[in-house]
Amino acid sequence: MMAAQSVLVTGASGYIGSHCIVTLLEAGYEVVALDNFTNSVHGMKNESIALERVEEITGKKISFYKCDLLDVERLSEIFINHKITSVIHFAAMKAVGESMQFPLLYYKNNLIGMINLLELMKAHEIFNLVFSSSCTVYGEPEKLPITEENETGKNVTNVYGRTKYFVEEMLRDLSTADERWNIIALRYFNPVGAHRSGRIGEDPTKPFTNLMPFISQVAIGKKDVLTIFGDDYSTPDGTGIRDYIHVMDLATGHVAAMKKLEKGKLGIKFYNLGTGAGVSVMSLIKTFEAVNNVKVPFVIQPRRQGDISTMFADPKLAESELGWKAVYTLEEMCSDFWRWQTMNPNGYKTESHTNGH
Amino acid sequence: MMAAQSVLVTGASGYIGSHCIVTLLEAGYEVVALDNFTNSVHGMKNESIALERVEEITGKKISFYKCDLLDVERLSEIFINHKITSVIHFAAMKAVGESMQFPLLYYKNNLIGMINLLELMKAHEIFNLVFSSSCTVYGEPEKLPITEENETGKNVTNVYGRTKYFVEEMLRDLSTADERWNIIALRYFNPVGAHRSGRIGEDPTKPFTNLMPFISQVAIGKKDVLTIFGDDYSTPDGTGIRDYIHVMDLATGHVAAMKKLEKGKLGIKFYNLGTGAGVSVMSLIKTFEAVNNVKVPFVIQPRRQGDISTMFADPKLAESELGWKAVYTLEEMCSDFWRWQTMNPNGYKTESHTNGH
Repeated sequence: MMAAQSVLVTGASGYIGSHCIVTLLEAGYEVVALDNFTNSVHGMKNESIALERVEEITGKKISFYKCDLLDVERLSEIFINHKITSVIHFAAMKAVGESMQFPLLYYKNNLIGMINLLELMKAHEIFNLVFSSSCTVYGEPEKLPITEENETGKNVTNVYGRTKYFVEEMLRDLSTADERWNIIALRYFNPVGAHRSGRIGEDPTKPFTNLMPFISQVAIGKKDVLTIFGDDYSTPDGTGIRDYIHVMDLATGHVAAMKKLEKGKLGIKFYNLGTGAGVSVMSLIKTFEAVNNVKVPFVIQPRRQGDISTMFADPKLAESELGWKAVYTLEEMCSDFWRWQTMNPNGYKTESHTNGH
Repeated sequence: MMAAQSVLVTGASGYIGSHCIVTLLEAGYEVVALDNFTNSVHGMKNESIALERVEEITGKKISFYKCDLLDVERLSEIFINHKITSVIHFAAMKAVGESMQFPLLYYKNNLIGMINLLELMKAHEIFNLVFSSSCTVYGEPEKLPITEENETGKNVTNVYGRTKYFVEEMLRDLSTADERWNIIALRYFNPVGAHRSGRIGEDPTKPFTNLMPFISQVAIGKKDVLTIFGDDYSTPDGTGIRDYIHVMDLATGHVAAMKKLEKGKLGIKFYNLGTGAGVSVMSLIKTFEAVNNVKVPFVIQPRRQGDISTMFADPKLAESELGWKAVYTLEEMCSDFWRWQTMNPNGYKTESHTNGH
C-alpha cells in the first residue's frame, strides 16, 4: 500500500478550505492544516471549530497549526515537522470591498504570503501546488461563456482580483523558469452551499456583500432587507448573472486537481470551476425562497461601480482534463446553505467556549 | 529660508540612483541614501564608491545606509533617525534575462521591497513618492510613439517588466484608496551616458545585455565582438529601435517630479522619460564609433524571443506637466559613456580598497 500523501492546506479553517479538507480526508489524504484565524473562529485549545467539526464529520485527524504565512520562521517549522508532498493554497484575504479600502494590506498578505510559501516549497523540493484563483481574474468578460482562453488581468475591477491575477502570473513565470513546478490554478466562480451535515459552512467574520449569505441572513431575520444593486442590466430579468457552484463541488474539484498533479509533470494549468449555468440574482432569491419556504424581502438600488453584468464559466476543460464536473443543483445549494444557517444562526460563534482571545 | 527637504533614495548606489543624487544635491535637497550593494560596489568604511564620488562631484554630504528593503527593522530605524519628506524608490533587481531565470527572486525583491517601503512611509505619514518604472510596462506597443495612454501590462515580455507593472498597479490602488498619497511613476526608456566628469557611470556587476555597456566593452577590448540580435526587423536598417536617454536627463526628470509633488496633491501620475527619438542599434554603434573614434566589431544573430522591434516615447506629457525635456544629444550620450569607460576600465573596482568582503 502506498504511503498517504501529506497535503499542506493553507487557509484551512476558511469556508472553502474546511469543505475541501472533508473531501481530501475522505479520499485518503493526510492533511496538515494551517490558518491565521484572520477570517475564521478559534475553537478549544487554539483549534479551529470548523476543523474540529471536519474531524467529527470524517472521523479522521488533522494536524493543525495556527500560523500566518508572513511568519516565515514558524511556517518553516511546519515544513520541517511534516513530510509534505503537495500544497493547496487557500489562505488569502478575500473581501472585495475591503480590498479597495486597504489595498496595501491585501497586496501584503496575498502576495507576500504566496512568495513565502513558494520559497519554502522550493527549499524543501515540494513542487506540487493547487492555487485558489478566482473568476475575477477575467475582469469584464469579452465573451461568454468564459473559457480559460479568455484574457485575464484586463480591467480587473478590484484589488482582491488583482492579487489573484498577480499570483497567477508569478506562478506562470515560475513554471516557465523551472520545469520542476507542477501547478494547477483553479478559477472559482461563485461558491455557495455548505456540507450536507449542516456542521460546517460559510461564516463571514467581516462585513460582506456575497449574495447567498446575505439572502440567508435576511431569511433568518439577522438583516432586515436584501439590497439588489441594479435591475437594469441587459439580462432577462435585469439583475446580474453569476455562476453559482456548490462548495462540495469545488471540494471534489480540488481532489481531481491533486490526482492530476500526481500523474506527472504538467507545468502550469488553469481550470474554471463553475457549473456553466448563469443564474440571475432574482432567480437565486426566488429559488432560495421556494426551496426553503422563507421570505427574502429586497429593495433595488442603483448598480455599484465595478460590478459586472454577467459571468458564467465554460467548465468543459476541467471536465475533459480533470474528469471533474459540478453535480449539485441550485436547489441543493440553497437548501444546504439554509441548513447550515438554521443549525448555526451565529455561525461558529454559537458554540460556547473560551479561547483566551 | 525653508528647511531643506530630506529625500530618502533607495538603490542610491546604482547607475540611475547615483546620477540622480548629484542633481538632487545640486538642487538643494538633503539626501538619505540606502543600498544593499547587490548591484553595486562597496567603498571604504562600508560606503559606496559611487556615492563617495557623488560627494566629491557636488562637495556635499550624503547620509548613507547599507540596508536591504527586506530588512524591515533596519529600514524602520532610518525612518526614525531622519525627518524624511519624500522617497525616490530606485532599488530593484533589473536584469531582464536573470528575471526570467529566477522569477521568485525578482518578485520577492521588487514587490516585497516596495510593500515594506510603502508600509513604513504610511506609518511615518510620508506620502510623496517617485517610483522608477520602465517602458517595459507597455509590452509590445500597439501604437508609436508611446504615450502614457498606451495600454500597460499586456504582453509584457519579461518578469522584470511585470514587477514594474505590478508595482504601478499597487500604487494606483493605493492612491485610489487614500488621497494622501502623492505619487509619480517615471517610465524610463533606455538610460545611457554618464556624468560629464567621468567619475560615475554604469557599472554592471552581473551579466548584462544592455547595448551601450556592451558596445563600450567591445570598444575597450574587454569583449571581442558585439552581437546584434536580429537585422530583419521592419525598421529602416533592420535592427531594433529604442529611445536612448542620457542618464543626466533622467536625473533632472526626477528633480522635476519632486518639484511637482511639492506643489500639491496629484494622486498618482505616470510620465514617460524619453527623448522621443527612435535610434536603431546600428545607428547607435555607428555614432559611438564616430564620436569616440573607436571600432566596434559586430556579428548578426537571429532575433531573441521576446525582443520588441521598436519603442520610443512621446515625452510631451512630461514637458507640459513637469516642465522637463531631455536636452542631451546622442553624441553626448556616446562620448560621456566612453569617458566613464576609459577613465574606469574596470568600473568602480579600479580603486584599490579593502571593504571586508
